[in-house]
Amino acid sequence: MTTVAAYAAPAAKAPLERTTIERREVGEFDVLIDIKFAGICHSDIHQAREGWGEAIFPMVPGHEIAGIVSAVGSGVTKFRVGDRVGVGCMVDSCRECENCRAGLEQYCLKGMIGTYNALDRNGEPTYGGYSEKIVVDENYTVRIPDGLALDVAAPLLCAGITTYSPLRHWNAGPGRKVAVLGMGGLGHMAVKLAHAMGAEVTVLSQSLRKKDDGLKLGADHYHATSDPQTFEELRGTFDLIVSTVSAPLDFGAFLSLLKSDGALVNVGAPEEPISFNLFSLISGRKTLAGSAIGGIRETQEMLDFCAAHGIGAEIELISASEINDAYERVLSSDVRYRFVIDAATI
Amino acid sequence: MTTVAAYAAPAAKAPLERTTIERREVGEFDVLIDIKFAGICHSDIHQAREGWGEAIFPMVPGHEIAGIVSAVGSGVTKFRVGDRVGVGCMVDSCRECENCRAGLEQYCLKGMIGTYNALDRNGEPTYGGYSEKIVVDENYTVRIPDGLALDVAAPLLCAGITTYSPLRHWNAGPGRKVAVLGMGGLGHMAVKLAHAMGAEVTVLSQSLRKKDDGLKLGADHYHATSDPQTFEELRGTFDLIVSTVSAPLDFGAFLSLLKSDGALVNVGAPEEPISFNLFSLISGRKTLAGSAIGGIRETQEMLDFCAAHGIGAEIELISASEINDAYERVLSSDVRYRFVIDAATI
Repeated sequence: MTTVAAYAAPAAKAPLERTTIERREVGEFDVLIDIKFAGICHSDIHQAREGWGEAIFPMVPGHEIAGIVSAVGSGVTKFRVGDRVGVGCMVDSCRECENCRAGLEQYCLKGMIGTYNALDRNGEPTYGGYSEKIVVDENYTVRIPDGLALDVAAPLLCAGITTYSPLRHWNAGPGRKVAVLGMGGLGHMAVKLAHAMGAEVTVLSQSLRKKDDGLKLGADHYHATSDPQTFEELRGTFDLIVSTVSAPLDFGAFLSLLKSDGALVNVGAPEEPISFNLFSLISGRKTLAGSAIGGIRETQEMLDFCAAHGIGAEIELISASEINDAYERVLSSDVRYRFVIDAATI
Repeated sequence: MTTVAAYAAPAAKAPLERTTIERREVGEFDVLIDIKFAGICHSDIHQAREGWGEAIFPMVPGHEIAGIVSAVGSGVTKFRVGDRVGVGCMVDSCRECENCRAGLEQYCLKGMIGTYNALDRNGEPTYGGYSEKIVVDENYTVRIPDGLALDVAAPLLCAGITTYSPLRHWNAGPGRKVAVLGMGGLGHMAVKLAHAMGAEVTVLSQSLRKKDDGLKLGADHYHATSDPQTFEELRGTFDLIVSTVSAPLDFGAFLSLLKSDGALVNVGAPEEPISFNLFSLISGRKTLAGSAIGGIRETQEMLDFCAAHGIGAEIELISASEINDAYERVLSSDVRYRFVIDAATI
């Protein structure tokens, strides 16, 4: 066991504070990662505040991890000391079910093991990226290509893959009209990625406040959802809408923006049940779908795609002592577009 | 204009009664059809009772029509006098939009023209199949293959195509596990069709009352949704669930029966909004979708498929004077599995 510094929430809704945690010894197939940067994801806050149900405390959040390999187990073949690597939302899964075998470890039938707020195979709690070091199985570690700076790469491990995967699965690309709903941490990545895939990209945001940013990041169009005319003008327009928002939505209104056979895919979700009339789907053979992160292989593919297209997150680098303030700013949508913790300050 | 006998609802919720209506002259591209049989669809009742919003009265329902061509316009090339033909839920559409051009006339961007309770191109109300004759453009008329008896073919024009289309679109076939939710007019057709397509078919019905029928029609398994164990046992089982029910459902529970990447497709719909938690879709990249009838080309394909596989509806033939009683029996699910009106009794 190795003692490392970390920032943890000692209890639900309590502020995060500096502490120490134990990391397991580096096993045969493990890599030890010196964490350099960790992104702050909205779901860190959901979980630290028990918005998604009972959680494990103390909790060290963080599943957008970028760092450098500083040791490897004797059986490790994929990584060497000095390699630039990332860890996302999961650190293990059963590896045997049909989903794991298909590279869809995020949908592991026995449940993937989260990077934090989960129990590992030995029943020990997992601790996330707001810490100095982490030990991860090489099969749940991905390579960050040389062309990508580690700080802007960190958020790709969740915000990047969460939007990349549905954009690929629902065929964002040339000739396709894609709307991105919400212009936050996930949304700004969806804009960059969909644009790089060749789709015609529209941002649908509450206001036009971030319009200049959206167009700069690759959007072709930008509309305010607070303007009723948006819904008249864009009726029947999109092949795909990726919703990154977790506030309750008027789903009937957004489904009306789809073409026939179009899909509204949710990567954000309100905690409360949603409600809409099924005729919104029946008229036009539309689909409402959901998508969660991506598999390990696809996460690597996403990082390679981002390196090839020069895509990183737009970030605001903070020191660890600013985490609690950053949480408040995330909750009030006051971040452009992702806070990243400089792990040297932990 | 030709005067023909028909059964009509004179006003919302009033019983249907015998009356006469005017049919237009047979135009250049029209066929005149002597109606032999007309199925009773649940949506006839919804519309006659204004359950789906304001309707046009008097209303002659009926969009499951089978008959014989008795006259053709000078420009008609597809049909001759004596041909066995069917008419389904629509008698026209714009023919110019991308959906019409793609053979998806049911999703016409200007709105398809319903066989009844609609206004035609000239602003005249359309009247449906509970009548002696109907005049329909040849492009919205389909051929009933010789192998199919007209009485059991009539319900294929709505119940058949409504289930055939999503089964095809979502790839029901060998190696795929398909559940049919509801064992009524639509459901019993879905069982026959999915079985003929080669899928492994499970019926999910409120009770086991119709189990023997279900297995006889082609189901491999039959479960009662009133039994909580059904949901435990079948968790994560299906590639596709086709829901034919219009009662409110616990969508979270039914989505849990899907495999990852599975789809729950609704061809029935409650009048009220539905409600469920989006995490039911996000966990497993599932989709909730809707589907409405099918295009004209696909309706012909469905009839040819049914003829090739010896598939007709299970019907109870009634005389026109029994329509109002039949409506009550449909509402209490007391029909196995479709009422068909013998048009000779109108």
